[in-house]
Amino acid sequence: MNVAQAIEHRRSVKHYDPNHVMPEVDFARLMQLAKLSPSSFNIQNYRFVNVKDKELRKQIRGAAWDQAQITDASVLLALCADLNAHKDQPARYWQHVPEAVRDFMVSHVTPFYEGKPQLTRDEGIRSTAFAGMAIMLAAVEMGYETGPLIGFDPVAVGKILNLPENIILSYLLVIGKPTKAAWPRGERLHDSEVLISDKFSGKHQ
Amino acid sequence: MNVAQAIEHRRSVKHYDPNHVMPEVDFARLMQLAKLSPSSFNIQNYRFVNVKDKELRKQIRGAAWDQAQITDASVLLALCADLNAHKDQPARYWQHVPEAVRDFMVSHVTPFYEGKPQLTRDEGIRSTAFAGMAIMLAAVEMGYETGPLIGFDPVAVGKILNLPENIILSYLLVIGKPTKAAWPRGERLHDSEVLISDKFSGKHQ
Repeated sequence: MNVAQAIEHRRSVKHYDPNHVMPEVDFARLMQLAKLSPSSFNIQNYRFVNVKDKELRKQIRGAAWDQAQITDASVLLALCADLNAHKDQPARYWQHVPEAVRDFMVSHVTPFYEGKPQLTRDEGIRSTAFAGMAIMLAAVEMGYETGPLIGFDPVAVGKILNLPENIILSYLLVIGKPTKAAWPRGERLHDSEVLISDKFSGKHQ
Repeated sequence: MNVAQAIEHRRSVKHYDPNHVMPEVDFARLMQLAKLSPSSFNIQNYRFVNVKDKELRKQIRGAAWDQAQITDASVLLALCADLNAHKDQPARYWQHVPEAVRDFMVSHVTPFYEGKPQLTRDEGIRSTAFAGMAIMLAAVEMGYETGPLIGFDPVAVGKILNLPENIILSYLLVIGKPTKAAWPRGERLHDSEVLISDKFSGKHQ
């Protein structure tokens, strides 16, 4: 399957075979690929929580409008981000480049983020989505279906996952074997609504 | 090229052939694929600004640490999100499903976001990153290199792009033909730092 085919195939699927178990080798491969996703300054701020415990899954489902895929999918990932990644021994992110480059990066990364909580959060959300899209497309290629979810009570799920103060939860992602297809894909918004040339005009919404 | 190969090949490239022009058919294909990316409630809140004007490119480069790829890459995209997408005639996002489903979605989407500016912004950032990762991987498959960028003055670039109040700029993305490869890929963080089983422990960072 090529990239374009995977993008065209991917849909957000809600119904999964609760008896399917993902082989560990498949999960490991998905995580290996996810870790190749881009992050600003290579801070690799994504954190992947693999929720296998059935009781935790039930609790999360209870805080997420009782959506069945949360307990039924083969894998439930919580895509999280570490808000301290930029200042947690940053030299380790550039061990592979010449010392001058590494020094430049280390001296710039902390001031770039420090005192900018919105920028830091944005980068956490972005990194988790870059990584999650890689996971979704790779999973499709491996014969799975996926579904990203934000329909849950974030405070309740944060408590269930015991999120430390420096960690934010971006979204949940289910992966598994489908028992029912998604709705047929609807029309996408017309290009005139989503593509803008050069800059927004005064008249644009 | 399959998905895994594209993920493994993708790097953030900084040096591009300034004389290369991307054929319109390639750009149209990238946008067509980008529009298949997931968004919460299918609100399709991503907005893609294709900055072709050379003077605007120079201005953006001036607000972005003079990074050469901003003027030299074949394409400079500004990945933006519409914070009002959830309440802008939402019935049009589910024209293809049974009326009862559509009614349910329309009645739930606006309350889900209304009065929650952080959630709305987060969803904008997420959608632009899902779409951008699809663009990056599809572009790699088409023989291009790419690079996402947040190293710029967001207020200055927002003014250059004439961002309306309801639009946020998530990041810039360059696409083109490379003249110089990225640094060799460094070691990734060990699984013990980025993979968590079930939930965070009290001892986690």
